[in-house]
Amino acid sequence: LPLAPGPEFDLIRRFLRGVPGAAGEVRVGPGDDCAVISAGDVALSSDMSVEGVHFHRDWLAPDEIGYRAAAAALSDLAAVAARPVGLLVSLALPAGDAGEFAEEVMRGVRRAAEFAGAALLGGDVASTAGPLVVDVIVVGAAAAPVLRSGAAPGDEVWVTGTLGGAAAAVAAWLAGGTSDASARERFAAPIPRVHEALFLLDHGIPTAMIDLSDGLAGDAAHLAAASGAALVLDAPAIPIHSALAGHDEALRLAVSGGEDYELCFTARAGAVEPHAAAFEERFGIALTRVGRVEAGAGAWWSEGEGRRAMERGGFQHFREDA
Amino acid sequence: LPLAPGPEFDLIRRFLRGVPGAAGEVRVGPGDDCAVISAGDVALSSDMSVEGVHFHRDWLAPDEIGYRAAAAALSDLAAVAARPVGLLVSLALPAGDAGEFAEEVMRGVRRAAEFAGAALLGGDVASTAGPLVVDVIVVGAAAAPVLRSGAAPGDEVWVTGTLGGAAAAVAAWLAGGTSDASARERFAAPIPRVHEALFLLDHGIPTAMIDLSDGLAGDAAHLAAASGAALVLDAPAIPIHSALAGHDEALRLAVSGGEDYELCFTARAGAVEPHAAAFEERFGIALTRVGRVEAGAGAWWSEGEGRRAMERGGFQHFREDA
Repeated sequence: LPLAPGPEFDLIRRFLRGVPGAAGEVRVGPGDDCAVISAGDVALSSDMSVEGVHFHRDWLAPDEIGYRAAAAALSDLAAVAARPVGLLVSLALPAGDAGEFAEEVMRGVRRAAEFAGAALLGGDVASTAGPLVVDVIVVGAAAAPVLRSGAAPGDEVWVTGTLGGAAAAVAAWLAGGTSDASARERFAAPIPRVHEALFLLDHGIPTAMIDLSDGLAGDAAHLAAASGAALVLDAPAIPIHSALAGHDEALRLAVSGGEDYELCFTARAGAVEPHAAAFEERFGIALTRVGRVEAGAGAWWSEGEGRRAMERGGFQHFREDA
Repeated sequence: LPLAPGPEFDLIRRFLRGVPGAAGEVRVGPGDDCAVISAGDVALSSDMSVEGVHFHRDWLAPDEIGYRAAAAALSDLAAVAARPVGLLVSLALPAGDAGEFAEEVMRGVRRAAEFAGAALLGGDVASTAGPLVVDVIVVGAAAAPVLRSGAAPGDEVWVTGTLGGAAAAVAAWLAGGTSDASARERFAAPIPRVHEALFLLDHGIPTAMIDLSDGLAGDAAHLAAASGAALVLDAPAIPIHSALAGHDEALRLAVSGGEDYELCFTARAGAVEPHAAAFEERFGIALTRVGRVEAGAGAWWSEGEGRRAMERGGFQHFREDA
């Protein structure tokens, strides 16, 4: 990599070892002042992970910290059904981490990027007196982005996979215990549903979509707000992760725990079933109908003939009592 | 903005008050999982500012922190002569800053964005137990990006404006004194040279370009490395900021202080002069020839008929003795 000498640039050289240069849609790769891509309409999102807030070092290996931060950001591309093109990574590194540790973090980032078909385009590194911060910026091709705003009364509400696995792991750790291995996997190595989202798009299925980063309760409320409609969910239909089987608070953890990075989408009635078996066959996860879109506003639980308001729950940045 | 209730989303609503939605090249503005732009070839860069490293609260007002972080990132678009389209901002906010303080930071970001013609496209906010972190991601239209790699022996080396103003302010503060007002302005309110870069591009001038974020000594070395050539600079030609007049270390501060965010570019011999007066008239700053490109490698001072190696100097992240 043609950078001048210096420890900051030595570190960048280590990060970029084996990273391909300009190819295909990437006209200019890492190492110049900007990367340049040529990908038509471009979807963009940034997702910042802060040590002590989003992750703890005793929960995750360094490469899992990087993988998870990148997967969370790539999940935003899935949420709009964009095809991943590339990502940039800004790292604030505490003293002592600007070597093997940072390289491991970036190895995890690259593992997530490769899974999603995204190139490493660039980023920034800085020293910090505070916690590790990993900001991942994702870039995708989005000729037909699926927004949060397209749900209409009469649509069905669906989710991919199962919910609550990540929350089960965090709950176990916070209680001082050990996490179930499959729950830990959901926290440490979430799968950004980028390929699943493109399958749904290719089959003309989603009218609106969001990824489950805050938890179904909160994210359904976002989708409802953006669509100007009410989302009414059936509690018994929620596909709860097996690690929460028999747990007293299984449903609450499944809908408020967040960080599962599954997709929640709406679809015209009957649009999903013809493709559900092919989806499950291809991706090894189910599609589950969890509710319906009605006139009104907000997120609700279905109850008999009526409905009751859903508590958001889960972690919220900047809550007064947090 | 159609987001669900919650303190994190209230803060985002405050940030986005008065921000236009989708318009022109911005197909999807802030508030969904991704923004979507339609701008042809797209240039991308991220620039992270960390409290205590890149800035101190007693040096800058909150809106200056935001302006400066955004200007530094926009300067990367200038460096490749990309037309600014938009930016995203990821903020890690210490407890107590997630209100008026953060809103002021974002007001400064928007001031820089408006100056450059960039829309606020989105971003992320998170709480942190550490220092304030502002990561600004810039997006530009770059049909003909000017890279670091295009300099060839025989080219001339030029810089915009004057160098060392920001370093003069920092030197004064670090010595416990007060900064000269015009030097403080260069540190607190640097002008990203986006319009100047487009002028140079429109007139077919730059063969290679970089923005002076690390200081001319370090950035000339990057340009030399990328171009596979040597940059040989004339010390007496360096346009030193007036605040350093009579300063013992004026030249060292001017070339190693960094953070002036002026441009350094190379041009074929004689290509600049026909346009220099129009440039100065339009932008109120000079173009100064500071050296030449020769065969070889690295950055040098011209000395008699020969040359001597240039020390990089200036702040370096992760230096062993830092």
